[in-house]
Amino acid sequence: MSTVTQEVGGKTQRKLLNHDNINPHIRRVQYAVRGELAIRAENLKAAIAKRGRNGFSFDSVVNCNIGNPQQLKQKPITFFRQVASLIDYPDLLIPENQSKVEALYPIDAIERARKLLKQIGAVGAYSHSQGIESIRNDVAEFIKERDGYSTDPALIFLTQGASQGVQNVLQIIISHSNVGVMIPIPQYPLYTATLALYDGKPVPYYLNEEQDWGLDIAELTSSLAKARSEGVEVRALVIINPGNPTGQCLSEHNMKEIIEFCYREGLILLADEVYQANIYYPAQRPFHSFKKVLKSMGPEYDEFELFSFHSISKGLIGECGRRGGYFECTGIDPKVVDELYKIASVNLCPNVHGQVMVDLMVKPPKSGDPSYDLYQNECREIYESLRRRSAKLCKVFNSMEGVTCNSAQGAMYLFPQITLPQKAIEAAELSSHQPDEFYCLAMLDATGVCVVPGSGFGQKDNTWHFRSTFLPQEELFEGFCGLLTKFHNEFMDKYRD
Amino acid sequence: MSTVTQEVGGKTQRKLLNHDNINPHIRRVQYAVRGELAIRAENLKAAIAKRGRNGFSFDSVVNCNIGNPQQLKQKPITFFRQVASLIDYPDLLIPENQSKVEALYPIDAIERARKLLKQIGAVGAYSHSQGIESIRNDVAEFIKERDGYSTDPALIFLTQGASQGVQNVLQIIISHSNVGVMIPIPQYPLYTATLALYDGKPVPYYLNEEQDWGLDIAELTSSLAKARSEGVEVRALVIINPGNPTGQCLSEHNMKEIIEFCYREGLILLADEVYQANIYYPAQRPFHSFKKVLKSMGPEYDEFELFSFHSISKGLIGECGRRGGYFECTGIDPKVVDELYKIASVNLCPNVHGQVMVDLMVKPPKSGDPSYDLYQNECREIYESLRRRSAKLCKVFNSMEGVTCNSAQGAMYLFPQITLPQKAIEAAELSSHQPDEFYCLAMLDATGVCVVPGSGFGQKDNTWHFRSTFLPQEELFEGFCGLLTKFHNEFMDKYRD
Repeated sequence: MSTVTQEVGGKTQRKLLNHDNINPHIRRVQYAVRGELAIRAENLKAAIAKRGRNGFSFDSVVNCNIGNPQQLKQKPITFFRQVASLIDYPDLLIPENQSKVEALYPIDAIERARKLLKQIGAVGAYSHSQGIESIRNDVAEFIKERDGYSTDPALIFLTQGASQGVQNVLQIIISHSNVGVMIPIPQYPLYTATLALYDGKPVPYYLNEEQDWGLDIAELTSSLAKARSEGVEVRALVIINPGNPTGQCLSEHNMKEIIEFCYREGLILLADEVYQANIYYPAQRPFHSFKKVLKSMGPEYDEFELFSFHSISKGLIGECGRRGGYFECTGIDPKVVDELYKIASVNLCPNVHGQVMVDLMVKPPKSGDPSYDLYQNECREIYESLRRRSAKLCKVFNSMEGVTCNSAQGAMYLFPQITLPQKAIEAAELSSHQPDEFYCLAMLDATGVCVVPGSGFGQKDNTWHFRSTFLPQEELFEGFCGLLTKFHNEFMDKYRD
Repeated sequence: MSTVTQEVGGKTQRKLLNHDNINPHIRRVQYAVRGELAIRAENLKAAIAKRGRNGFSFDSVVNCNIGNPQQLKQKPITFFRQVASLIDYPDLLIPENQSKVEALYPIDAIERARKLLKQIGAVGAYSHSQGIESIRNDVAEFIKERDGYSTDPALIFLTQGASQGVQNVLQIIISHSNVGVMIPIPQYPLYTATLALYDGKPVPYYLNEEQDWGLDIAELTSSLAKARSEGVEVRALVIINPGNPTGQCLSEHNMKEIIEFCYREGLILLADEVYQANIYYPAQRPFHSFKKVLKSMGPEYDEFELFSFHSISKGLIGECGRRGGYFECTGIDPKVVDELYKIASVNLCPNVHGQVMVDLMVKPPKSGDPSYDLYQNECREIYESLRRRSAKLCKVFNSMEGVTCNSAQGAMYLFPQITLPQKAIEAAELSSHQPDEFYCLAMLDATGVCVVPGSGFGQKDNTWHFRSTFLPQEELFEGFCGLLTKFHNEFMDKYRD
């Protein structure tokens, strides 16, 4: 008889399933992006909706905590949504409706929807578990165009966002509880959360804040040596490039060093490249995929094992709600690919609407198509605005007392460091919060701006940061940046040592 | 140094990540619905597409292996798709487009899309990780209407199909590798696959084929006693009602017995109710939800712990490709609900298009709405046709030598038993297949009809079954049923003892 049963027989108050007897790996998972701050921000929003700004020093909550562009009014790409709309309601494509539909949709959207529907069969049906074949072909074509090296569509898995792909790959790598995976610090907490969930060991390496969050091979080497000396079986290295939350974009030279390091040390490389279209200094810091750099290194590296991840949620598209993405296997044992396919089968298939959006992302309107100019303009506008907003917010942070902030070479985030006065650190301790959490909660209450404390991503001991997206609408910047500066001044005055 | 690293240093051929050193739980997962037969069917399809029926005794492959209605040309519900189409392209809802849009969409679809967009904000944004609040409210309303007992929307989780919900709940229950979960045999293989993946122990109980696949409490009792005597910590019981692959629909009396059993034995109940709208003898065997039956049993059962699952993939909607569903927590410890929310957060959110479809499912057009009659007619037609097809196919199976088949009280499947001649069993052994697999492969090659061998679902020793959906289009029935009968006769003649 289990304890649980005895408890029930004894009519104790405890639930059969309670916090003490759930899967302990789940209990250990931490996920700050949606933690206390996010919940408090939601409550504030509800309160403002109910009783107006009465009692608050701001009109609205500004969600800088999640890379969620359309939540902050970024307009979706028109062509993509036109195609999606037509696919949802195939009756629009019958001849009787042609003239009415042409009054609302451009001809290339209609043609594209027709072609996709023919390839897919029915969007309401489960697709191939690995993703629709024609869409995987288009992804392969995109990769070839991007990198100059071809790819086998059979090695591409469409997924429900990059996160699902990362989880599947880490799950297959973690073969026992002593398996380690190297992750950057600071990191996007998906990695620590997934390692906790599947009972693997995070092997942290620190990015170099003083060098624009650059990646030092010496740091990788010493981190690996330390883990190995502790008996951890380190199997893989995760790189987020462009970085989240750090925004760095790796040079080709640095990427070669990383590949050489993995090769030398027998590590599988996981390249999280979901921000590959968010590159703000393309001349100095263009994006290179790890796949491309690897292939450029010649046949010696033919057996190198690499997983590369991409998503529709980021870039200039920001279709987070659709949950679409893919990963590509390079040099992976075919039997391992089969096992990944089996896991995909248990999940039936990635949602077909997300798959369709992947297809549109990798195969947008071409020059000469009726929708090409609009598509180009929309992308350019979003891109230029992101660049401006990134620079603007970075300047605001750097103008604050005790705050330093690297500019974002890529991605959607800034990760400023704050030097907090000792009194603030003590006050934080009294309220049972980390100092950076304490600062961020105070910021939220004073300004309505919701960011994520650095402790959710990891940071060097006794340094404090927060992550802020630069996604709020441009016209809001003056307002909330003013509030931020005022808050910071008052906070520093209040706690000045 | 790990073995893996040494191998690389030594330049052996082995990959760092190979079949022998992946997560062993993944290696152990079996998932027959998409196994050898499904792959062979795909290859046949491709071959026919390429070179016509040349060499085959059939024109096309008939996929009876997956409950995937729209793959087999079931038309989606028009109103649902109209709303989805409008939501995808919000520019349709601006005043300038009103008359053009009204020429293509009914007014209630337009109003519903407008309302949903207002509630959701942006379909391209990550939503609340647990699902959009207004949609959870509508689900709670639906449950209340169905059962007569109210529900807290905070205890409803929207998911990417019921499968994801089942996986999350099993994952949280399996706290160590000696945790057992009672599952029906035959069962939908999601359960054994998920138990393998999270390293739990399946505790099988057999459904009673002679009693229309009924569920005997004596069988539950002896199965539980056996597992406990072997030291397994049995924590939960899974019921699939209506059954998959068995199609049984439980009586209210039987459900009360099951709840009493769980209560007595200290088991959490997982009720997979995805086929609740597929009920073919509503007078004799109506659907009752476990939630409703539980609530009818009075305050003694107030602390009972139940998870109930539902989906948009089945019923008369069949929107499998969208990946939408929900689960409801009844009597679950709030701290456990918080942990489920944390896991949902790591996955960001269920895809918003699937959430929207959940909303449409639980809140379809009402009497008096412009789309009501069409909606009713479409549902009725699909329902009547499913009933007819189910009866037709059951009759065909029962007319075959050595085959007996219970009729489907619910769901989308028949699970006939075949008495195979000894010679067939020996031939199967020679070809390294299970006898039922051998029979199903022969069926596929002879008829193009793809079903799933009973061994993929579990069956009593030395009995052989297969699962077939009755979803092919009605007009195809005469053709493929004729081929099936002819195949079976020839098979029996060939292997007759």
